[in-house]
Amino acid sequence: MKNRFLLAFVATLGLSLSAAAEDGYDLWLRYPLVDSATYAELQTHARELVAPGTSATLEVARRELMRGLAGLAGKPVPLVDSASGPGALYIGTPQSSPAVASLGSSLRRAGAEGYIIRSMPVGGHPATVIAANSDIGVLYGVFHYLRLAQTRQPLGHRAILSTPGTRIRVLDHWDNLDRHVERGYAGESIWDWHKLPDWLDPRYTDYARACASIGLNGTVLTNVNANATSLTPDYLDKAAALAGVLRPYGVRVYLTARFSAPIELGGLKTADPLDPGVRAWWKAKVDEVYRHIPDFGGFLVKANSEGQPGPQDYHRTHADGANMLAEALAPHGGIVMWRAFVYSSENTEDRAKQAYAEFVPLDGKFADNVLVQVKNGPIDFQPREPFSPLFGAMPKTPLMMEFQITKEYLGFATHLVYLGTLYEEALAADTWVAGKGSTVAKVITGQLHGNFSLTGQTGMAGVANIGSDRNWSGSHFDQANWYAFGRLAWDPAASARDIATDWIRMTFSNDPQFVAPVLDMMMGSREAAVDYMTPLGLAHLMGTGHHYGPAPWVSDLKRPEWNPAYYHRADAAGIGFDRGPAVDGKGGSNAVAQYAPKVARVFADPHKVPENLLLWFHHVSWDRRMASGRTLWDELVWRYGHGVEVVSQMRRTWDAQQGRVDAQRFAQVAAFLAIQEQEARWWRDACIAYFQSLSRRPLPAGAAPPAHPLEYYQSLQFPYAPGRG
Amino acid sequence: MKNRFLLAFVATLGLSLSAAAEDGYDLWLRYPLVDSATYAELQTHARELVAPGTSATLEVARRELMRGLAGLAGKPVPLVDSASGPGALYIGTPQSSPAVASLGSSLRRAGAEGYIIRSMPVGGHPATVIAANSDIGVLYGVFHYLRLAQTRQPLGHRAILSTPGTRIRVLDHWDNLDRHVERGYAGESIWDWHKLPDWLDPRYTDYARACASIGLNGTVLTNVNANATSLTPDYLDKAAALAGVLRPYGVRVYLTARFSAPIELGGLKTADPLDPGVRAWWKAKVDEVYRHIPDFGGFLVKANSEGQPGPQDYHRTHADGANMLAEALAPHGGIVMWRAFVYSSENTEDRAKQAYAEFVPLDGKFADNVLVQVKNGPIDFQPREPFSPLFGAMPKTPLMMEFQITKEYLGFATHLVYLGTLYEEALAADTWVAGKGSTVAKVITGQLHGNFSLTGQTGMAGVANIGSDRNWSGSHFDQANWYAFGRLAWDPAASARDIATDWIRMTFSNDPQFVAPVLDMMMGSREAAVDYMTPLGLAHLMGTGHHYGPAPWVSDLKRPEWNPAYYHRADAAGIGFDRGPAVDGKGGSNAVAQYAPKVARVFADPHKVPENLLLWFHHVSWDRRMASGRTLWDELVWRYGHGVEVVSQMRRTWDAQQGRVDAQRFAQVAAFLAIQEQEARWWRDACIAYFQSLSRRPLPAGAAPPAHPLEYYQSLQFPYAPGRG
Repeated sequence: MKNRFLLAFVATLGLSLSAAAEDGYDLWLRYPLVDSATYAELQTHARELVAPGTSATLEVARRELMRGLAGLAGKPVPLVDSASGPGALYIGTPQSSPAVASLGSSLRRAGAEGYIIRSMPVGGHPATVIAANSDIGVLYGVFHYLRLAQTRQPLGHRAILSTPGTRIRVLDHWDNLDRHVERGYAGESIWDWHKLPDWLDPRYTDYARACASIGLNGTVLTNVNANATSLTPDYLDKAAALAGVLRPYGVRVYLTARFSAPIELGGLKTADPLDPGVRAWWKAKVDEVYRHIPDFGGFLVKANSEGQPGPQDYHRTHADGANMLAEALAPHGGIVMWRAFVYSSENTEDRAKQAYAEFVPLDGKFADNVLVQVKNGPIDFQPREPFSPLFGAMPKTPLMMEFQITKEYLGFATHLVYLGTLYEEALAADTWVAGKGSTVAKVITGQLHGNFSLTGQTGMAGVANIGSDRNWSGSHFDQANWYAFGRLAWDPAASARDIATDWIRMTFSNDPQFVAPVLDMMMGSREAAVDYMTPLGLAHLMGTGHHYGPAPWVSDLKRPEWNPAYYHRADAAGIGFDRGPAVDGKGGSNAVAQYAPKVARVFADPHKVPENLLLWFHHVSWDRRMASGRTLWDELVWRYGHGVEVVSQMRRTWDAQQGRVDAQRFAQVAAFLAIQEQEARWWRDACIAYFQSLSRRPLPAGAAPPAHPLEYYQSLQFPYAPGRG
Repeated sequence: MKNRFLLAFVATLGLSLSAAAEDGYDLWLRYPLVDSATYAELQTHARELVAPGTSATLEVARRELMRGLAGLAGKPVPLVDSASGPGALYIGTPQSSPAVASLGSSLRRAGAEGYIIRSMPVGGHPATVIAANSDIGVLYGVFHYLRLAQTRQPLGHRAILSTPGTRIRVLDHWDNLDRHVERGYAGESIWDWHKLPDWLDPRYTDYARACASIGLNGTVLTNVNANATSLTPDYLDKAAALAGVLRPYGVRVYLTARFSAPIELGGLKTADPLDPGVRAWWKAKVDEVYRHIPDFGGFLVKANSEGQPGPQDYHRTHADGANMLAEALAPHGGIVMWRAFVYSSENTEDRAKQAYAEFVPLDGKFADNVLVQVKNGPIDFQPREPFSPLFGAMPKTPLMMEFQITKEYLGFATHLVYLGTLYEEALAADTWVAGKGSTVAKVITGQLHGNFSLTGQTGMAGVANIGSDRNWSGSHFDQANWYAFGRLAWDPAASARDIATDWIRMTFSNDPQFVAPVLDMMMGSREAAVDYMTPLGLAHLMGTGHHYGPAPWVSDLKRPEWNPAYYHRADAAGIGFDRGPAVDGKGGSNAVAQYAPKVARVFADPHKVPENLLLWFHHVSWDRRMASGRTLWDELVWRYGHGVEVVSQMRRTWDAQQGRVDAQRFAQVAAFLAIQEQEARWWRDACIAYFQSLSRRPLPAGAAPPAHPLEYYQSLQFPYAPGRG
């Protein structure tokens, strides 16, 4: 069949068909027809498919492979019982497939979830085998194989072995039962609780497909600001129905546990974790959960943080609370993910220090099936933070990484900010706790502290950016952050650049004239956002409550650490938070002391600390000379301006792609970039106007003065900004 | 090109393409390929298209026609400057098209918005002309023509003249600025206020297309429970951006006006409509609105109802309030739609009587550009109500009909309830105010009381069921209610059955084996819902707040008329609300007296009132003999059971359609019907369990006893049911 003929015909069918096909719903799993003249690999290496096996997961793998190959090749690939000649593709486990069984012990290294993709003779013919020890490993291998074709890689002479670097790779949905998504910028929750368990939206299946395609194996359905109702029988029925849809894709269901549920649901007088009645209640509740969901993953808990109930309400420790739940879950193989994101409403200590202070003394006190889930930085998902000092400081405790995929502090849905580089920076950060190379990645994969990895509990969580919007993530480019999170959870050593390249090719186009500039745009995008929002180590300058736009002037909120002014501490002399050691009873919070000595010395020294973290750790004179030769004040202004300029360049880059991408997605990206440029200017102008009111210094030559007086920016109100907590 | 070849090919492209194509997004505008062997009309009558004209609306009409014809015919229809032979299709106005100009005065009857579709010779060749006096009339004609083809009607020998029966045909969106939709069961609001005015979702265009396709010409963007913020400059910018998208489709933008806006936005001390400062504020505000939106339609106002502010707060009348706004709008051609849905929080009078009591004395006191918007029944969109006594009782005031399209009281999104029959019943109701045939339809079209139609203000409003759900309305069959509302607003005398037939053919299939049973199912669906929810004139038995499911036992809410028990008044002796005349100081509320004498006599007589309104107007003994020969108690139980049985039959009807409709829509409808059957049983069982606790009578032979004891039904809680106010 002539491809051009088909495409011309489809075009005449009208807009609705093509519109639906390129609205972003298909994510990176589009499988559009390849040009076989320039990429003939499928014709050679995927002529036939041999895929025996009857499990639900193998059925899913077979169907995905057939769907993907049919789309890419433009015709169905025959599914056969035995190959008729060279170029067959075999998939399976040793149990399901004789070809895979013939691999023998060489499959051992694939472990429980990994897979092998190997070019090898089968029955005397050159063939390709996608093999794993488990059905889910086969599915992961199938998605890897499809990715090779989607990104136009050679399909012959392959010897791929891939195993996950972490065991628990989960999305955390901050989704409420009324479908509001806290910090969600992509519509409502995809979980339609009201119609569950009877209506199983096909979208749940596509969610599971997308998760499995990047190796995610778990989902926390409910908000960390938890609602005990999610543990009632009716809601467990609903969660069980979802679990049934997700199960063939290897995605386990987890729930958040509200610590006070024994009071709210059980009618107990206390939720004290050492109270026998409370322990019995949780044990019975967990048993009930497992009657609904036999492979339930476990609980995610936010306790004694931002007003949530927790064990400290009863003068117990986080370990007491976590271990109580862990004890109830252990017989079923469930785990507890206990968040270290805590800061007390009474504590006057530097907020950046509080999680460490609370958790490090508990190292070694957590049950084997507890993981402590730590945000990448010590504060809260800011555009840039140093790594959290907890990483490396709890050698006896499995620490999970918690990244934010939804862009609460990074421009919501309309700013193009690729977070792969942020994740990579955090994972590559060297804690030095066991000498050079003690990276955060090695902490969370258990490579650094072998003594806790006895239980094999390692993990990475991403706060989901998924909602009911047709394109899932609110913008086309935000899909890349879901994608990058999954790929890095599977391989924390992977390259953000390589991941972005794959994503661009799968999501948009393999045209090198498209891939190269768009890749550059993505790779520079996070640094641009840092520059136009919070350059040089600044943080937490956003609007109160909704976190939309700049509000560095806010200083009148009840708790000191709610105020942007708490974080930047700008005054007539300078700007920045002194977290160095106190000298003569004066000076910094000494947060630097929470890091390994080698790191602490660097962070403590305003001349050694990287300039991109300077104001995080130091209060610095406006007149201090920077590496660029500019004063700090001039550098700050330059950075704000530079961030805007990069966004302008991103717009030009994208606009030049017109015609290399479908009109529908092109238009939305272009419109969002225009919004981003406008809002980057707003950030720049509002912050410069405010900081200039304190620094009293002139703008450097060439810098545009703010478009409006400071009062204008201070007057803006956004009562209906999305995603409120 | 062989159609079967194409379809087979498209099938091999995988699920995503076909899935996207039949997810309901395209509504009744799908334009799938016709089988030219059985329907050859397009080949004969639409060989070429002659469509000159450059206005935005003519461009839209031309594009829609080309899209529709290309989809139906499977190939583009040539757009030519002049026809090459017979079978050309001409569209235009006398200004844009010489062919149309040749119609001369015969176009006069089409009026401002109407159109002609006429088979006639043009330039010596047989041709078809779609002609109107206005561009928008051309677009309406194009959609009518496409409907003829979509429903496989003959395209030759046509002489169609169509003009709208009402001038203002609007959707009322009860959408909040945070995208929550009050009484919405289809996701969030389609208006993404946060990203407006910069991001214009293509969905806005498709919304406008769908509205124009059924003749709707206005949309009230904001909730009647109004927020003054929607009148601030930023939000007027956003509304103006929407207006720009909707304008080419003839859809005007309206907003709700919060009566206290002069206080909240203007800082005034009062919102008294007779205060000169308040009047000046509104005048300036309206001028400002028109600077943003030159063709702004006007305001919809809910005042002094359910806690909303209004003129009565200042001891002024509804007329005082409406006229103040009308005065500000009049110079710009804008109107006020002032809702008659009022019931006082202090009034102890029968709620069904209050709107009449407040509004009838104001007849003749409203400005020319005010319409009073009246719900079809005297209470609130119940499954069945008698017509509101206001219809016919205000001969000097234009009364707009307000229907509810969203199914607040009719099972939310999952119950299949075709409302065309409800609308038809209300419009056909005979008020008898000017003798037989004084139908509600004639009241709202101005045919009955010529004296108010001087200003030409007639209208119909539908409370929208549209949201961010992919299929727009939350369920595929709920699209039919949007469709039917539009068709009836255009032609209040149209037949609900004919409309449903068109809708089925356009939305699903022209296969007679599909159309006939599905039509029967739709036509019986509303009566089924009445039976399993509120048979025999019962009303308002639903759960408190969310209005989900049955709760006839509720009697402890603060205001009497919030309680279901207020409405059914069941006791040991009988059931029903006595609205007949009081006798000897005892007895009914005499609501019947608000109707014309002829009607009042029927309603007042328990032996003459239709049985389907019996308990609305009378408190009747459980033992009273009904037309069926059963006692009232037995009849009530029978009705509840019958409603469930009809739903079971609907399920069987639908299940038999498997294969006649795409798998994706088939599955959702089937799943929703299963939910409906389950919830119909729940309604039946809960209501019978409750009423039996009062009637103390045995169930008639053959009636299944409730599945659970009454206490079970009373214990059910639904804190996260969607759509809360």
